[in-house]
Parts: sequence; C-alpha cells; structure tokens
Amino acid sequence: MAQHILTAQDLWADIETVRTRAPLVHSITNLVVTAFNANVLLAAGASPVMAHAHEEVEAMVGIAQSLVLNIGTLDPYWVQSMTLALKAANARGIPVVLDPVGAGATPYRNQTLEALLAAGTPTVIRGNGSEILSTAGTAIQTRGVDSSAAASDALGAARALAGRTQGTVCVSGETDHILDATGRHATLRNGHVWMTRITGVGCSLTALVGAFCAVQPDAWRATTAAAALMSVAGERAAEQAQAQGRGVGTMAALLIDELQHLPQADFLARLALDVKRDVPVATPVPGGA
Amino acid sequence: MAQHILTAQDLWADIETVRTRAPLVHSITNLVVTAFNANVLLAAGASPVMAHAHEEVEAMVGIAQSLVLNIGTLDPYWVQSMTLALKAANARGIPVVLDPVGAGATPYRNQTLEALLAAGTPTVIRGNGSEILSTAGTAIQTRGVDSSAAASDALGAARALAGRTQGTVCVSGETDHILDATGRHATLRNGHVWMTRITGVGCSLTALVGAFCAVQPDAWRATTAAAALMSVAGERAAEQAQAQGRGVGTMAALLIDELQHLPQADFLARLALDVKRDVPVATPVPGGA
Amino acid sequence: MAQHILTAQDLWADIETVRTRAPLVHSITNLVVTAFNANVLLAAGASPVMAHAHEEVEAMVGIAQSLVLNIGTLDPYWVQSMTLALKAANARGIPVVLDPVGAGATPYRNQTLEALLAAGTPTVIRGNGSEILSTAGTAIQTRGVDSSAAASDALGAARALAGRTQGTVCVSGETDHILDATGRHATLRNGHVWMTRITGVGCSLTALVGAFCAVQPDAWRATTAAAALMSVAGERAAEQAQAQGRGVGTMAALLIDELQHLPQADFLARLALDVKRDVPVATPVPGGA
Repeated sequence: MAQHILTAQDLWADIETVRTRAPLVHSITNLVVTAFNANVLLAAGASPVMAHAHEEVEAMVGIAQSLVLNIGTLDPYWVQSMTLALKAANARGIPVVLDPVGAGATPYRNQTLEALLAAGTPTVIRGNGSEILSTAGTAIQTRGVDSSAAASDALGAARALAGRTQGTVCVSGETDHILDATGRHATLRNGHVWMTRITGVGCSLTALVGAFCAVQPDAWRATTAAAALMSVAGERAAEQAQAQGRGVGTMAALLIDELQHLPQADFLARLALDVKRDVPVATPVPGGA
Repeated sequence: MAQHILTAQDLWADIETVRTRAPLVHSITNLVVTAFNANVLLAAGASPVMAHAHEEVEAMVGIAQSLVLNIGTLDPYWVQSMTLALKAANARGIPVVLDPVGAGATPYRNQTLEALLAAGTPTVIRGNGSEILSTAGTAIQTRGVDSSAAASDALGAARALAGRTQGTVCVSGETDHILDATGRHATLRNGHVWMTRITGVGCSLTALVGAFCAVQPDAWRATTAAAALMSVAGERAAEQAQAQGRGVGTMAALLIDELQHLPQADFLARLALDVKRDVPVATPVPGGA
Repeated sequence: MAQHILTAQDLWADIETVRTRAPLVHSITNLVVTAFNANVLLAAGASPVMAHAHEEVEAMVGIAQSLVLNIGTLDPYWVQSMTLALKAANARGIPVVLDPVGAGATPYRNQTLEALLAAGTPTVIRGNGSEILSTAGTAIQTRGVDSSAAASDALGAARALAGRTQGTVCVSGETDHILDATGRHATLRNGHVWMTRITGVGCSLTALVGAFCAVQPDAWRATTAAAALMSVAGERAAEQAQAQGRGVGTMAALLIDELQHLPQADFLARLALDVKRDVPVATPVPGGA
C-alpha cells in the first residue's frame, strides 16, 4: 500500500464524492436505528435501501454499491439474511461493513460473529472498544451495547482483527482509531460525549462507512473520512445544542443538518487527525483470529 | 362519477374532517418508517395502529377505518400478513392504500406485488414514478427505493394501473399526479426537493392517504387532499428550515409541526392544484395489467 | 409496607440515582417505538439494550438490571421472546415492567396478556385506561392503541390487577394513577395533551419505569418517579413548543432535552402529586383476575 499521507483535503474530497455519486447502500441493520441510519445516509448524500428477505437479499446486493451488516437486534432469520448478503457482496466484490453491536454481551452474539467471519470477509469492521475486543476473540464481558473498554485498550485486538480480515478496523470512542492490515493508523480526536446519548450514532457511522467505501476504493481512507464527517458534525451539533441551552433531542436533528451542510472551512479547521504507520500486522494464520 | 371540479376549499374541508373524526388507520408498513408514519398520522389528527401477527391482523382490520400496506421491508411472514389484511379489508369494504416501495428493485418485490394485486384490490396505489411503472408491469429496473423515472413518464402506467384496479393511483414526484379509472387527473406542483432527503416522507404520504380515505369516500379526492397537505406542509417546513440556516434534520420536525398546524389561509394561497379529465381508461381485461 | 409519605424530593432523588447509576434496561418492545424508547432512556441517564432472539434473550436478561415488555407489535416469535425473558427475570429477581399496548383491541392481545400473566409476574403494569381495564379482564373494546376510557374509570381494574400481581399498576391519562397491592395510591396531575400526539410517549414512560425500578427497590415509588419525570418534562416541552409557535414535531425533540436537563427547582415547583392510601386490596384468589 502507498506511503500516502492522508490529508484533511483528501477526506473532504471523499465527502463531496458521496454527495455527487449518491451511492446506493444496502443495510441489514437493527430495528432500533433503521430510520436514523437512513436519515444519516440521506443527509450525507447517499441513497439507503433496506431489505432482509432471503428471497431478495442477494438481488438487492446486486444493485447496491456497498453492504452494511449490523447485528444489534439479530435473530436466526436475520443472521441468515446477513450471511446470504455477505456472500453475495464478497462474490460481487462490493465493500461490506460489519457492526458487531453488543459483541460479548451474549454467547449468541459471539457465535454469530464467528459464523459471519467464517462465511465471508468484511472490508471494514466498526465497533466500540468492547465490541472490537470481543470480536477479536478476547474474553471480555460487554455491558449491553455501550462500551466498557476505552478505544485505546482495544488497539491490539483491532490490529489482530485487521490481520485476520486483511481489512480495516475502526474502534470508535473519545478518540477514534482506524487501522488496517498494512499498518496504517489514523486517529481522530473530534466528536462529543453527547454522541453516546443518542441511539444509533455509532450504527449510523457504520452506515456512513458503507457510503464512503462505495465511492472510495481505499477502505481505510473511506472509513477515516466517514468517521471524520460524523465526529466533526457531531461536535458542531452538540455545541450548537448547548449554545441554545438544549440537549440531545435537539442535537439529534442538528446532527442530521450538519451531515448535510457542514461547511468545508469548518471541517478543515476542526479536524484533529493524525496518521502514522504501526508495526505491520503479521500475515494471518488461516482461520485464526 | 361526478363532473365535480375539485377546489382547494374541498381539500381543506377534508383536512379538517380528518382532525375531527380521528380515523383509526391500520398500517402494515416497513421497519424504517414506523415511527415517522405514526407521528405523521397523529399530527394530522388520525389515530395509527400497527399490527402484523397472522393471529390478529383480520381482527385489527375489523376495528380500523382504513388499511395501509407498504412492502418496503417485506418478507414472507409480512407478505402473508398483508394478504390476510387486504382480503379482510376488501371483505369489510374499508379502503386499502398500497405503497409498492422499491417495486422493480428485485424479482421478489415484483412477484409480491403481483400476488397482492391478485389477492385483492387496493383502493389507492401510491408510489414514485419507477414504482408505478414497475407495478404496472412495465419492465424497468428500479434503483433501490428512490425513483429513477420522472413522475410524468409514469402517467401511462398509472392510467393502466388505475384501469386494472378501477381505483386511484398517485404518482409522487416534483409534480404529483393523482389519477383514477374514470379519467380524473389532479396535478399538484407543491412540495420541496428536500422531502426526498428525509426517510419515510413518501411512505407517510401513503399513510395520510389512508387517513383521508377513511373519512372521504371519494378516494381520488381523498388522495389529492392528502398529497396537498403533505406537499404544502413539506414546502413550508423546508422554507422555514432554510430560513434558519438549517437542514433536513430540523425540517423533519417542522414537517410534523406543519401537518398539525398548517394555517388554512396559507394552504389555500400556496396550493398549486390543477384538475382535468383525461381520456377515460378502457375497461380492464380480466387479469390483465 | 411503610406509612411513608412520598415527597417530591424523594422522586427527585430517584431521578438523580438513574443518572448516576445508569442502569442497563433490557427492552423487548414494539417496532414503532424502538428508537424513541432508547433515546428516552439515554436522555434520562439509563442504558438501553434490545434483544429478542430466543437464543440470547435469557442471557441478556442475565446482565440487565430490569426488563421491559411491550406487546405493541406482537407476533408468536416475539411473544415467546417475552415469555422466556419474563421467566428469566422472575428467576433472577430483577424487576419486570409490562406495557399491554392495545389490550382489548383483538382477542390475540388478550390471550397473550393472559398467557404472560400465567407465565410470570410483572413488577409493574403500565397502560392507559382501556388497556388496564382489558388486562384486568373487564370486557371492553379498545379502539386501537389509544384509550377510550378515562384513567379514573380504570381504577377498580387497576386495583384488581395490582392484587393479582401483588405489584404496582400505573394508569396513565390526563391524571396518572399509580397504585399498589398494599393500597398506596399516587396521583399526578402533570403532563400535556400533546403527549398523546407523539408516538411512543406512553411506551417510553414504561421504559422509564424500567430504569427507575432498576435503581429504586420500592416499585411503586419508582413508578411514580418515572411518571413524574415524564409528565413534568412533557409539560415543559409542550409549553416551550407552543411558545415558539411550533407543534408536536418540535416538542418531541424538546421532550428528550427536558428528560436530560429538567431543572430540579422547576420539577419541584411544578409537581402536582397527591399520595393517599386506598382500602387495601384483598388477598388475590390464585389464578383469578
């Protein structure tokens, strides 16, 4: 991979490309975040579609530019939908983004993630620290769907997972880390703690990653761009809500507004991005985590 | 049917009737728009109920004043729910509004629509241009759930569909067209492009059509009234959001506000309604589209 | 039970405890209110999780501090999920809050409620007047999910139900009544009629009761605190929306804001709470309603 130093301008270019190309993002996601995910994608300029019937999931993958899988409210029917879609997306070569919501909370979630990773290969995995630790196979008890581990604690697990998938892993938290199997490592220090008080913000970042991967073939760069957009938009929305003396209800609407209208100058001025190269990840052992 | 020239005052009267009568609208809809649909109905003065269990769907139809079917996130269980509900509504003589979300996107959607139209008769079909073209049997590849055809391109398909169902068809777009089997044709030039950037606006128009059909026996007039309310409310909401320097997140809340509080004078002043009579639709061939 | 006179300060203390302890509330709820319920819980300081797969529902109960069951969009799979979760929660001794949405609307809902009450024991039942009447076995035809009975008409049914479960029953309406099997009876005259025009407000009160029961072992007090928070927040949100010339769309966001930021002084000043002791409820006949 390239010695490319990723710049804020690169990320802004990707934001504009999503708006111009309006990629069709097929999501199989959880029952809590459907509307918010769709509104996030629409605000950013993408076109969302959701379909889970076994009879059509492969056909819908066939017209989409990327696939987003989210296990937040999984059950056997939906796991099978995700499996079919994952295989179809891998076969077609479109990017797949996996959100391991609540990984570690129950054995069933862990088994399902293991089965999905055995059935196909996600291009990007996006989760909080606990979820990335669990998905990587590290024994940890997740507390529901909120993270009980700091993002930085999960970096080793993220690197292992990136090695296994030969892909990109995004660990979200106060600082976001975006790593890939070649050792590239972006950190983002934007965002606001109120983003954790609105349901679906993390899941919607995952959906945005899908939109960016659909237009930017470098998935690590695409993931960084999506995380940058969401975190700068979230930070602006929180500040505006606070300036009005309001809370997270008002902020949720402002976040959508910001995803639509975030000014370039403010994005560039606020972005707290660092890019480095970690020790390269070892060649993965087949089947190993 | 009457030579009635539909006026803005007629439509306003229907808006007020929905508020006064608070009809119970039973929706079997997609998993993305449930909350927004319910909030749209509540804001307009209707009473929403959602139920899909095979064990109760007919009983729920039995206490509702209209039925809304939306295939956006269909699967075999929900298709069976819709089929049972459609038959029960037809048997009881309450209006049924069908939203063929994503028609043409996959064979399964097309087959499902064909099966629904074989199982019963919707009073109104509401979709975008692509969806109406596909539902009418015209070969077209829909791009996900957003329209790739202008509403005006779908007028022939809409007329054919109105002939087949002997009912009303609404093709939504920059201009909305509401046609019926007797050749009545209303066009509405209200609305705002941002309405396509909020998930569920089209589906919620379908839900509103259900509310209006529940209180206004002329389904073509009821559909026109619902579309008029939604498009004028949407236009006002978009303008207000833009005047505040905000985007579609803020607009979504304002749209609900407008559905509740749209002033009569402003509705009458803004309404861009034309009514004409097309060449009557030919008597349908049994079983033909 | 204690002769404790419940004060506004007691309720405020519980509000603060939810914020401090951030209890994990496991909801199996309806498909309309998932996002709003989660946002209400997050705004109040709790941590929501939703899971319904038979494979994990008991494990999720195992890490939660309370369980919320809501039958709004029930079907056989979800009823089984609720049954498994109810039994697991009873076995573990964590509080269970049941929302009998639409009780009386269809035989299937009534049968399901009877089956749930036979399978386990909810700590609190929260519904509108019609729903409480139906759940208590009183023959009444519910009109969809909105109440056709005043809360006060349902007091006898609420007392019978509290006797059967030896628990707490909350009847929501213009005045909220919170009763328990020992004869304690709190009434709250806060709230605003616009709260009935936003989907999921009642269901979200039920979710909040779950959060409060998780931190306050006296379920009657916890339920009163949750209802007080919701109704005062709702009243403030409605007044603010009206003062801005806005409607229920704007109010929905402000309601979330208020749940997060309601000032103590305003809560104490507004609270219209009365507490009395009714004639004690008779010892329940086993199996009887």
